[in-house]
Amino acid sequence: MSRTDIAAVNRAFEEAARKRDTEKIATLYTADAIVMPPDAPFVKGREHIKQLWGSAIEQMGVKDVRLNTLDLEVVGDTAHEVGEAVLTLPSGGVTVKYVVVWKKVDGQWRLHRDIWNTKGA
Amino acid sequence: MSRTDIAAVNRAFEEAARKRDTEKIATLYTADAIVMPPDAPFVKGREHIKQLWGSAIEQMGVKDVRLNTLDLEVVGDTAHEVGEAVLTLPSGGVTVKYVVVWKKVDGQWRLHRDIWNTKGA
Repeated sequence: MSRTDIAAVNRAFEEAARKRDTEKIATLYTADAIVMPPDAPFVKGREHIKQLWGSAIEQMGVKDVRLNTLDLEVVGDTAHEVGEAVLTLPSGGVTVKYVVVWKKVDGQWRLHRDIWNTKGA
Repeated sequence: MSRTDIAAVNRAFEEAARKRDTEKIATLYTADAIVMPPDAPFVKGREHIKQLWGSAIEQMGVKDVRLNTLDLEVVGDTAHEVGEAVLTLPSGGVTVKYVVVWKKVDGQWRLHRDIWNTKGA
């Protein structure tokens, strides 16, 4: 169940990114989530996370995000995921490695910690 | 207890890095650990993790690692940590953000997932 639910949130994330719906993306995170993009400070809380994805879409031109779960371990109401994401930019696709720590809050799985970096050549 | 134990493993990590003891560093990870350095592929298992830290010390010239835990949530035999690390290189200090997922195996807290990226200017 948890695996299916978490996969569904990843699909909702991809769809929201395609629709440039940063409000929706922000709601997929916990209220006290921390996002750690490369070459940038910590991004804490939904409002800042919304701004982060807004600038990723507007300024970096991220058009599409594909999330590919490689490993997922669920322990009660938390889980951690290792995956690869493909970000489609105007210049082409960039593949990144990521770790997401998930937390189930009020019956909903939400991204609680989100960090990624590039895979290199 | 868990917090103290995890902090002790971080201190052991720092000490092993100072002593260039990559064998010791590798034992601080779980047998099926995954490390995700920036601009590089996934590094899986202790032997490859030992090689990774060997090349970080030998080729990149990492002399010192300081780990600063900013957030730690423990759930049973797993935990996740958000922190900052300062790596001392020949060119100076580099500060990175990191997430470590911890797992307690045979009574010992071990790094199970380890990912970091730079903080930027």
